[in-house]
Amino acid sequence: MEFDYSPRVRELQARLLRFMDDHIYPSEKAYEHEIATNRRNGNVWVPVKVIEELKPKARDAGLWNLFLPRSPRAPQGLSNLEYAPLCEIMGRVPWSPEVFNCSAPDTGNMETIERYGTEAQKDEWLEPLLAGKIRSAFLMTEPAVASSDATNIECSIRRDGRHYVINGRKWWSSGANDPRCKVYVLMGKTNLEAGRHEQQSMILVPSDAPGITVMRHLPVFGYDDAPHGHAEVDLKDVRVPVESILLGEGRGFEIAQGRLGPGRIHHCMRSIGVAERALELMCKRLQSRVAFGKPISSQSVWHERIAEARCTIDQARLMVLKAAYMMDTVGNKVARKEIAMIKVIVPSMTLQVIDWAIQAHGGGGVSDEFPLAKLWAGQRTLRLADGPDEVHRNAIAKMELAMHAGRPDANVAMPITRGS
Amino acid sequence: MEFDYSPRVRELQARLLRFMDDHIYPSEKAYEHEIATNRRNGNVWVPVKVIEELKPKARDAGLWNLFLPRSPRAPQGLSNLEYAPLCEIMGRVPWSPEVFNCSAPDTGNMETIERYGTEAQKDEWLEPLLAGKIRSAFLMTEPAVASSDATNIECSIRRDGRHYVINGRKWWSSGANDPRCKVYVLMGKTNLEAGRHEQQSMILVPSDAPGITVMRHLPVFGYDDAPHGHAEVDLKDVRVPVESILLGEGRGFEIAQGRLGPGRIHHCMRSIGVAERALELMCKRLQSRVAFGKPISSQSVWHERIAEARCTIDQARLMVLKAAYMMDTVGNKVARKEIAMIKVIVPSMTLQVIDWAIQAHGGGGVSDEFPLAKLWAGQRTLRLADGPDEVHRNAIAKMELAMHAGRPDANVAMPITRGS
Amino acid sequence: MEFDYSPRVRELQARLLRFMDDHIYPSEKAYEHEIATNRRNGNVWVPVKVIEELKPKARDAGLWNLFLPRSPRAPQGLSNLEYAPLCEIMGRVPWSPEVFNCSAPDTGNMETIERYGTEAQKDEWLEPLLAGKIRSAFLMTEPAVASSDATNIECSIRRDGRHYVINGRKWWSSGANDPRCKVYVLMGKTNLEAGRHEQQSMILVPSDAPGITVMRHLPVFGYDDAPHGHAEVDLKDVRVPVESILLGEGRGFEIAQGRLGPGRIHHCMRSIGVAERALELMCKRLQSRVAFGKPISSQSVWHERIAEARCTIDQARLMVLKAAYMMDTVGNKVARKEIAMIKVIVPSMTLQVIDWAIQAHGGGGVSDEFPLAKLWAGQRTLRLADGPDEVHRNAIAKMELAMHAGRPDANVAMPITRGS
Amino acid sequence: MEFDYSPRVRELQARLLRFMDDHIYPSEKAYEHEIATNRRNGNVWVPVKVIEELKPKARDAGLWNLFLPRSPRAPQGLSNLEYAPLCEIMGRVPWSPEVFNCSAPDTGNMETIERYGTEAQKDEWLEPLLAGKIRSAFLMTEPAVASSDATNIECSIRRDGRHYVINGRKWWSSGANDPRCKVYVLMGKTNLEAGRHEQQSMILVPSDAPGITVMRHLPVFGYDDAPHGHAEVDLKDVRVPVESILLGEGRGFEIAQGRLGPGRIHHCMRSIGVAERALELMCKRLQSRVAFGKPISSQSVWHERIAEARCTIDQARLMVLKAAYMMDTVGNKVARKEIAMIKVIVPSMTLQVIDWAIQAHGGGGVSDEFPLAKLWAGQRTLRLADGPDEVHRNAIAKMELAMHAGRPDANVAMPITRGS
Repeated sequence: MEFDYSPRVRELQARLLRFMDDHIYPSEKAYEHEIATNRRNGNVWVPVKVIEELKPKARDAGLWNLFLPRSPRAPQGLSNLEYAPLCEIMGRVPWSPEVFNCSAPDTGNMETIERYGTEAQKDEWLEPLLAGKIRSAFLMTEPAVASSDATNIECSIRRDGRHYVINGRKWWSSGANDPRCKVYVLMGKTNLEAGRHEQQSMILVPSDAPGITVMRHLPVFGYDDAPHGHAEVDLKDVRVPVESILLGEGRGFEIAQGRLGPGRIHHCMRSIGVAERALELMCKRLQSRVAFGKPISSQSVWHERIAEARCTIDQARLMVLKAAYMMDTVGNKVARKEIAMIKVIVPSMTLQVIDWAIQAHGGGGVSDEFPLAKLWAGQRTLRLADGPDEVHRNAIAKMELAMHAGRPDANVAMPITRGS
Repeated sequence: MEFDYSPRVRELQARLLRFMDDHIYPSEKAYEHEIATNRRNGNVWVPVKVIEELKPKARDAGLWNLFLPRSPRAPQGLSNLEYAPLCEIMGRVPWSPEVFNCSAPDTGNMETIERYGTEAQKDEWLEPLLAGKIRSAFLMTEPAVASSDATNIECSIRRDGRHYVINGRKWWSSGANDPRCKVYVLMGKTNLEAGRHEQQSMILVPSDAPGITVMRHLPVFGYDDAPHGHAEVDLKDVRVPVESILLGEGRGFEIAQGRLGPGRIHHCMRSIGVAERALELMCKRLQSRVAFGKPISSQSVWHERIAEARCTIDQARLMVLKAAYMMDTVGNKVARKEIAMIKVIVPSMTLQVIDWAIQAHGGGGVSDEFPLAKLWAGQRTLRLADGPDEVHRNAIAKMELAMHAGRPDANVAMPITRGS
Repeated sequence: MEFDYSPRVRELQARLLRFMDDHIYPSEKAYEHEIATNRRNGNVWVPVKVIEELKPKARDAGLWNLFLPRSPRAPQGLSNLEYAPLCEIMGRVPWSPEVFNCSAPDTGNMETIERYGTEAQKDEWLEPLLAGKIRSAFLMTEPAVASSDATNIECSIRRDGRHYVINGRKWWSSGANDPRCKVYVLMGKTNLEAGRHEQQSMILVPSDAPGITVMRHLPVFGYDDAPHGHAEVDLKDVRVPVESILLGEGRGFEIAQGRLGPGRIHHCMRSIGVAERALELMCKRLQSRVAFGKPISSQSVWHERIAEARCTIDQARLMVLKAAYMMDTVGNKVARKEIAMIKVIVPSMTLQVIDWAIQAHGGGGVSDEFPLAKLWAGQRTLRLADGPDEVHRNAIAKMELAMHAGRPDANVAMPITRGS
Repeated sequence: MEFDYSPRVRELQARLLRFMDDHIYPSEKAYEHEIATNRRNGNVWVPVKVIEELKPKARDAGLWNLFLPRSPRAPQGLSNLEYAPLCEIMGRVPWSPEVFNCSAPDTGNMETIERYGTEAQKDEWLEPLLAGKIRSAFLMTEPAVASSDATNIECSIRRDGRHYVINGRKWWSSGANDPRCKVYVLMGKTNLEAGRHEQQSMILVPSDAPGITVMRHLPVFGYDDAPHGHAEVDLKDVRVPVESILLGEGRGFEIAQGRLGPGRIHHCMRSIGVAERALELMCKRLQSRVAFGKPISSQSVWHERIAEARCTIDQARLMVLKAAYMMDTVGNKVARKEIAMIKVIVPSMTLQVIDWAIQAHGGGGVSDEFPLAKLWAGQRTLRLADGPDEVHRNAIAKMELAMHAGRPDANVAMPITRGS
């Protein structure tokens, strides 16, 4: 057991921190300004120049596709444990992961194609994604059913000769509003007669296929999260070649199992970064403001809250790192309890820290003077995305009960849900 | 001791509930649609027709200016205890109080002018406000200082012959973006040499006075809250006649003391209504959605949360009613501990209930499918507006400690703060 | 609606407070000393002289049997709403209710016999109980089954000619160790074939009947709660005349329903008194101790906690008073949701306040320097006695869900459980 | 970074687990029975035979003095990181550490003498302690002052020729009631004129020195914790040779700093073991009890609580292990923030898990049917012992604030307190 980051990680951390200081933080105002200008000009759903200009710099700095596990197409890949502390740093500025081609849902989609795709699928979609030329979306959640139980999914994928015909309605398809979004990874049902976990399949769908309508974007609290956004997407008799299927019919659950671990751990690591930033802002604010003759930091409950924030952040980080370590060493399946645990622990922790920070900032905290209100809204979605807390807690509890009952807990699957 | 509403209140409740059912709930979609249309058309800062059309109906139904305490200009006035349960009902739809001419900050401003204004001030400003012809704003909080300590206020009100000259920057001036907003109640300092609580004065300022610039609106968790909104207002050499002062120089704190009680209790009652609505939505949603073969309402923690919600709502309501009763019977000053207590208790309770309701609604809960996300954002500001929780808890604690030490607690003032 | 105590109640409060000041608080050390002496002398299960000497004084002061609702045998009886604030005052010193003949479980047993007993049963048992000459116990909970579901009860009451024959094992039979305990109110099953809620009956059992063995006392944390205590009782072929049954065979549930309301509300009111005392001790301690150069009361989180304590105590008290009012006006059955709510709210609130007070007292707080540790232990049992929190929360939630679904909620019974 | 225990640790874990299974758990009833018998026989303050008989077995199994860091007298010593998981296992049965000569306060006293003692002091006191022949106590906390601020200590150590003369009153001197307790490590003041942190000294005091009176034992929630117990000790003109001082006059704070880290981390690790045991008992109980037709484990909030328990235990364990790692690699002083954090995190976490477990066990949970109530009481003291939570949170917050302000935080000392 050893709690220091490896020399390689420390070098990458230093390089990334420098890049953040040199390029990301100084661009925050420009980023917001560009979005505001686009909005005033009538179309906010366009790529952000600030990001596009930073991408080559990140690539030159060797800070590109850091998320990708070692593979033939990524010989320098990092382990989850190595990537985690880097992901945390990027998380401090929510738009920064795209600069490093490390943003959701592309990372999850790339991993899915890399792991389960054919070479032809990889050539067509993985390569431009790795190059940062196109973007992608993941279409799983549906508005009509409780997606916390993934077997509820109703979208149909029907075989018709050399094609599959897709019909359904999806929402929370993040990034589908972006004009660069060229491919969807879609989950639907190919066989309603099969076993409960063999009905589903995953399939690659070009975003320009006839029959697809991006209906609207879904706001999160009052934010549209442009230009990324969260779309509702309608699919009506959308035809794709049979070669578009991933791994084969009825294997959608299996892929989802493999996919969910990394996606969740990335979210968690970014959230840790968010919590650290909120705590930093809180400490600085409290030391700079005076009320009743003393800095607010020395008054009332603030010591208590700062200490609690530090304690809970550090605990959460260690859990995430341990989960990453287990994914690397014993695999996502064995690590599923740890993954479920961080999925539950981290967003609630981060929300609490941001909430205290908001309280420390007064009216500015709920407005746009500081990034806190927007960070809060983003984190709040993570208690629902990829399955609500309640479903994951139930899974953890069942594994725990099985262990104490001496039962094998293999039948407690990681919840495959997208949360709404 | 008696826990039933009086016959008069029960009759008003019934009448108001009917009006809500007949006119308010059926207009909710139209209200949202009108705002969305205004926004698309390029100006969302205009009065809402839906509201204007309902106002005469409310007046005809005898549901107008219910908030106003009995006075020469309001012979049928209600007590705080009588108004509270009506205010709760209006709170269920955040825009509905305006239909009944009972919306903040007009109610507080009307009470202030009614209580402390000259007849001339009442003729000029109170009459059109009571008639619902103009609106008003309250300018207290400032961006540059910790307003949790009201003595920090920097806005200057300087006597110059027959005028006062006002210079300062205010923010969170809710409603100042509305074109009908014709008058500000402003707090500033007339004498920096006076005692800590005698430096401040309140003054009436016409919103069209030269030197006033409404800078921008402040978003709340991404919402602009149009057409009401929260403005930042700059005042540069704004001149008003000396007759505009309320009560006299140096009496700003005294007025603030009198004003804050009713304002806070109205907020609290509306919040109770918000919590009730969130609980209702939660119960209905949980019973209508099925996961893993059963209605979600019967699963996991939902019974626990529903019970907790019911318990905390009912407790909070009783506290608000008791505070109202005390304001009516022993006065705002003696009731200041109870007022501070509800100020602390209610918004946190309501936020928790809404948060559970959001969790029960999945992705729709954080978006605009349901009113929950917006209600949450609105309630979150109430932990800061009129002073952050922390300041009020300190005041409560000091009164409690004084009591147990056998000291008179008269010197523990109700915090006069506006929260940012 | 009105939040002042009636003149009659205020007079009784004043009289009772005076009695507490004159007789109860000054006897606290003597009470503890007598128990310690009895323990050293080898038998702690004997009546306490301090109490016996105070009883006539309480009777002379008109502070006797205050708990008893108006009835032919108690023409001066108080309503629940009138008794509640008196009960709170007695609660501040856990042994004091016995001085006023108002201690559990006698109060509940007296009410049960008064309400459901025959005149013969009243003559035999109610009279000496009202006179404070004997004591009683309530035998419901059983060690072998989850008593949170009262239908689990296994104790059998079998008719055999002119007798019932009782066999079973009970525990948490509080007071059965006291030599003055002469009668048990016992719940058992007379008919295993009847409907789920018609199998149970209640019966009066003389404590000296052959076949009864008081096995041992059950400690609560490390306290034996002598001389009252909590006994495990074995009943083997215990024969009682058929006239001993209460109300008739199969009516045990019905009686339990009627009995539980008052018992619970008394517990809750006493708990409010406990919380008030803990808060008082906390405030006094924090103001008297100095660390790092300042009274501890002005440091760190203490203001926050004191304010929270005051807020939660006052909220809880209002809920209890409202429940009492409803019991008086619409009856225990309609008030069952409110009764369940206070059952859940009050002990948790009180435990939190005591816990803070313990923390404020340092090592003395967990020991016997202050009454806090013992008060905590006593309150902790109340989250289990008469049914664990979880069962009551479920009942509240079901009623709430039924209301929002437009279903009558009459079928959601008040949990009849004794908690282990 | 690496999250697996080393092979050496895994081997020791396996050996210790086997010893627990073979010897400790099977002796739990006998241990309780022996204490109960001693108590009935009139003297419970005698060594327990069960333990004495197990000691040679532990020694033979190579499970002796595992706590001791590597040193000339302990060449096979373990690091903190290696010892931590073993300490956790012992923590599952509170009396078991003594079997392995690893029980508080002896471990802390042995480390103190080993680190700061002269060879003569080691020969006299360390050797018999390491051999398990005598026991020891640590005398720091005083009843008269708030010990959360260690500079409050009043016990005087006055030089008089070749002796020091000690006068003072100490309490919470755990183990001083044990007849085998032969030596005290005492903290007092040698110089009231010196700097705030140079007034204190530590000194070794034979427990049989004239002038020492062990006044009484202090109960903890009704438990006397015999035969160990917590004593109040009076010292009146107690004379010890000048050679008894540790390290030199005025160095008491310095020693306390060095001592506190290991003591705290041992407590924390044992607490983790306690939490694990409570969770295990809870899971087993919930699966074995049926209410309303289903195992309780599948009902209401239990999944939520089990999951929360697992999440918080695992987080806390990782924090403790990281703190141990830092103590081993960068030293107790640099690790003081991490040590303060686990001091705050662990007992509260453990108390919550036990509280849920109690709730799952019903009446048996608060009594002596299960070890839960006693475990709870023991853990509750840890929120006060070695300094109350509040003091440690303040220290953590000050370090955090200093970091964000760019100030060196070296002047924020680890609180040296003993908690009452």
